[in-house]
Amino acid sequence: MHAYRSHTCAELNKSNVGETVRLSGWVHRVRDHGGILFIDLRDHYGVTQVLCDPDSPVFAEMEKVRAEWCIRIDGNVKARDEDLVNPKIPTGEVEVFVRDLEVLGAAEELPLMVFGDQEYPEETRLKYRFLDLRREVMQENMKLRSDVVTSMRKRMWDQGFREYQTPIITASSPEGARDFLVPSRLHPGKFYALPQAPQQFKQLMMVAGFDKYFQIAPCFRDEDPRADRSPTDFYQLDMEMSFVTQQDVFDTIEPVLRGVFEEFGGDRKVDQTWEQISYAVFCLKKKTDKPDLRNPIKMQIVSEHFRGSGFAIFAKLLEQDGTEIRAIPAPKGGSRKFCDRMNKFAQQEGLPGMGYIFWREKTADAVAQELGITVKEAQAKLKSGEVEGGMEAAGPLAKNIGPERTEAIRQQLGLNVGDAAFFLGGKPKAFEGVAGRARTTIGDELGLTDQNRFAFAWIVDFPIFQLDEENGGLDFDHNPFSMPQGGLDALLGDPLHVKGFQYDLACNGYELLSGAIRNHQPEIMFKAFELAGYGKNEVIKRFGGMVNAFQYGAPPHGGCAAGVDRIVMLLADQENIREVVMFPMNQRAEDLMMNAPSEPLNEQLRELHLRVIPQE
Amino acid sequence: MHAYRSHTCAELNKSNVGETVRLSGWVHRVRDHGGILFIDLRDHYGVTQVLCDPDSPVFAEMEKVRAEWCIRIDGNVKARDEDLVNPKIPTGEVEVFVRDLEVLGAAEELPLMVFGDQEYPEETRLKYRFLDLRREVMQENMKLRSDVVTSMRKRMWDQGFREYQTPIITASSPEGARDFLVPSRLHPGKFYALPQAPQQFKQLMMVAGFDKYFQIAPCFRDEDPRADRSPTDFYQLDMEMSFVTQQDVFDTIEPVLRGVFEEFGGDRKVDQTWEQISYAVFCLKKKTDKPDLRNPIKMQIVSEHFRGSGFAIFAKLLEQDGTEIRAIPAPKGGSRKFCDRMNKFAQQEGLPGMGYIFWREKTADAVAQELGITVKEAQAKLKSGEVEGGMEAAGPLAKNIGPERTEAIRQQLGLNVGDAAFFLGGKPKAFEGVAGRARTTIGDELGLTDQNRFAFAWIVDFPIFQLDEENGGLDFDHNPFSMPQGGLDALLGDPLHVKGFQYDLACNGYELLSGAIRNHQPEIMFKAFELAGYGKNEVIKRFGGMVNAFQYGAPPHGGCAAGVDRIVMLLADQENIREVVMFPMNQRAEDLMMNAPSEPLNEQLRELHLRVIPQE
Repeated sequence: MHAYRSHTCAELNKSNVGETVRLSGWVHRVRDHGGILFIDLRDHYGVTQVLCDPDSPVFAEMEKVRAEWCIRIDGNVKARDEDLVNPKIPTGEVEVFVRDLEVLGAAEELPLMVFGDQEYPEETRLKYRFLDLRREVMQENMKLRSDVVTSMRKRMWDQGFREYQTPIITASSPEGARDFLVPSRLHPGKFYALPQAPQQFKQLMMVAGFDKYFQIAPCFRDEDPRADRSPTDFYQLDMEMSFVTQQDVFDTIEPVLRGVFEEFGGDRKVDQTWEQISYAVFCLKKKTDKPDLRNPIKMQIVSEHFRGSGFAIFAKLLEQDGTEIRAIPAPKGGSRKFCDRMNKFAQQEGLPGMGYIFWREKTADAVAQELGITVKEAQAKLKSGEVEGGMEAAGPLAKNIGPERTEAIRQQLGLNVGDAAFFLGGKPKAFEGVAGRARTTIGDELGLTDQNRFAFAWIVDFPIFQLDEENGGLDFDHNPFSMPQGGLDALLGDPLHVKGFQYDLACNGYELLSGAIRNHQPEIMFKAFELAGYGKNEVIKRFGGMVNAFQYGAPPHGGCAAGVDRIVMLLADQENIREVVMFPMNQRAEDLMMNAPSEPLNEQLRELHLRVIPQE
Repeated sequence: MHAYRSHTCAELNKSNVGETVRLSGWVHRVRDHGGILFIDLRDHYGVTQVLCDPDSPVFAEMEKVRAEWCIRIDGNVKARDEDLVNPKIPTGEVEVFVRDLEVLGAAEELPLMVFGDQEYPEETRLKYRFLDLRREVMQENMKLRSDVVTSMRKRMWDQGFREYQTPIITASSPEGARDFLVPSRLHPGKFYALPQAPQQFKQLMMVAGFDKYFQIAPCFRDEDPRADRSPTDFYQLDMEMSFVTQQDVFDTIEPVLRGVFEEFGGDRKVDQTWEQISYAVFCLKKKTDKPDLRNPIKMQIVSEHFRGSGFAIFAKLLEQDGTEIRAIPAPKGGSRKFCDRMNKFAQQEGLPGMGYIFWREKTADAVAQELGITVKEAQAKLKSGEVEGGMEAAGPLAKNIGPERTEAIRQQLGLNVGDAAFFLGGKPKAFEGVAGRARTTIGDELGLTDQNRFAFAWIVDFPIFQLDEENGGLDFDHNPFSMPQGGLDALLGDPLHVKGFQYDLACNGYELLSGAIRNHQPEIMFKAFELAGYGKNEVIKRFGGMVNAFQYGAPPHGGCAAGVDRIVMLLADQENIREVVMFPMNQRAEDLMMNAPSEPLNEQLRELHLRVIPQE
């Protein structure tokens, strides 16, 4: 028999009854039922119930075994009594009577229980990651991640792509975030950088004629941590192809990603057609931090209804240039309780509050006030039908602007009894963030957002340039390497009107992917950089490798990079990237288990010709 | 029609004759046959011949096109004349008459030709890698590499392994080579390290219950460059599994690697059974720098024949302790020309020379001298059979030690007329390197080494400890984390006799893989380190993450790591790793194309709280 196991802990069933088997795994749980020890023995594949009583030659040793010890047992497979069968696990029909035991690895007292659902502080979980990872949800998350990456690879291969590895120790890349530097020992005073993305290398591969490249690529950015972002390294499904248009890239990557979401999304619906929304329209309709397409709420500009109105705050605001009032309709949100809750949300976001109107059946109160009668009389008139109930608008804002403007707003937004609308005003850039979050919260709280759906849309036609508000000059709005729509001619017109062949893919409030058709013509590239204030020499200095290559017969090419970690987060229904990474850093970019970063040896610093400047 | 191509440059054949097609690619070669331009248009997939004459509306533009321009053409597919068909390429039956042309990317004067076989200095090739990579052999090498890695992944999946990614920005790993350090911005004065291998992480995954892990893992070592090693990063097929014995690891990885070599090895034979050779035997029989199992030459110790002999150099040498004389038999090497060539080889290796003996038919010269007659008389006697020819030993060494000792050597080595033997002496450590290289050269030059074979053998039973010659203490011979055969008990005996469950895989003179069953029991690990002079605290300080984990129920586990770059080198029949890496560093660890490493910005150093110490 094998030294450690004849079967895994997920394999035994009724057909094995009577066999002598050998199992290895961890003690998931021990129960002592009046002199009979029941142990759930767990390995990567499943759990098998093993038991032991004083008839077993190893009963005394079995009594010493504790949770999370790693053991090997030999025993006889027995059928469980009909009423003790556990249909939830594949081994639920049987149990194994233990005849022999070997302790493979004992365990000290546990800082973290694997069995059960107890929550632990993240620092504990990360320090004892090797225990944390034994928990079922973590095993499932990691398997999911691995399977998702495998599926991506297979789907890219099926589309005729090959995976090529690009250097990890290299030069600074022009992605715009902060590089991690790596001091060179052989060239004192010089540094390598870890790539923020394989952007330049993948474009160089296209120049080298490789036609279709992809890579599950590690990317490195020295960024301040966020929940959905690793503070150090993360993975992208990075791809690039030659002789293609924007639509070719979409047609290539859509089936890959849709396939992955269908394969691993469980019972959640996956959009079959992915709308292409221009950036301008997208901004207007859904401008938020994290645009969630599942949310049907469409914000609308309602400035005209507030201009010169009795609501002084908005009326005054609108006297300034570039301001507007936006409404967030909230169908079925028409209760004071809900409106107050959303007002509180706005206060938590740092605003003084969020104006609202909601529409309800006329109350006896309102009728009494209107007709100058008592509430009781009003109730009676309403009940008898002598007075029609109808609709009334409630909320302080409605009172301030009066019934006509209120009604005009209601009609524009298409709302009715039982609905509400919230209002935010100012310069769009200033309030769009909170407006987006309010829209999300409203959609979630009112159940308008379909939680059971992966909603996708392409955002296209990004502007190439934006106005630098500080100096009035032009700056790149996104990636400077995108091909302007219309080529060189377009750049000779009004630069602010030039759109790029550049795109994002939005899914459920996340940006999952971004990409572009690249600007492969040196002439157009230099012109674009010139407009943004960069001279030819500066461009050559910063992006010399790629720019030089474009002088030697560059093909038109384009591609994209999709965030692997985010895709797995969405599929695993997790909101923290650390739940889908095997050994993540904490929020302060520390590895508590391995003790990184740490003090270097003097010898190491000497070899690198570096000195650490003491902190004041 | 698509903006750039209706077909690739490998797709068109007779069935397309008459069609109007669109192709994009690079101008591989232009030939002007009396007013008709023939262009080989090349893309990633193949080459198609296109042609153009003054009847074409774009003839004038076509005349301007130069090698390596990237162009798009439209044209009509025509069948070639029977006698102009090129059966070597799939598109050889047709050609395309050009009707329209678009220059997608023009090229400056080329520093490096893509067409043809011209050799260029490596610096030129690396600086213009994007051109170098367009050459057919490089396209093939890169595709091969990608396909090999893909095949490895598929084979590992088929064996029930999942790929999990381990951190790239992490703590120092205990592999023994020099780490690349990464300064931390958030923790001034502290540094991360790039992993030399995912060794600790993969063992932690086993402790976390993942059972079967693999990864095509980037590894980083700040080493001085060598031809078969990258000076920065390289890739390993890294794997680990729980509840296994050494044989289980062999049974798992053998079919993976054998499969890869069979799939991509062309017509080269792949050993079907892989011998397991103990380290001690292996050292004795084949001790070399790069033991090549295809080479049948077996060195032998022949000290006794030289002790007290007339060959003073060896005789004196043998008076010192720990010295020996070793023979390298060279069947069919019995000519003075060959022996002189090998003597020269030894001189190039820095030795004064290499003694040799060769055996030949007795010459008339020798007979004349022996019998005191003229050479002419001797020739006549030999011809008539009056004197028997027989064998004679030639070379200065044979003369010095005399016929009896020479004959004894011949018999020990089993040599005959037409064969030779070479001799090296001294302390084995001092001459084993050159002996190994001599053996390789002899095997190659005499055609004894089967160049058409991938020969594999497992080297097993490595000693855990070796004697530190400087201080007389014990040191780890290989990886300190291997499980000693015999466990704790073995460590209580003579440590120098303890073997580990540790193994290498040798293939055609390269070490392709190494691995071990790990020492997962803290008690045994601490004992092993204690014997090597490391206290418990030191071990915890250096390997805390892993040692700590072993206290919480560690399973027995083991695995290995195989060098991806070397495997691809062997399959591509290349001797330099840079031929199988897309964007390699040069020998001085510089990327000439991207300009890495480079001077950091002051701002970057300030953020990292670092100062560069000026060079003297």
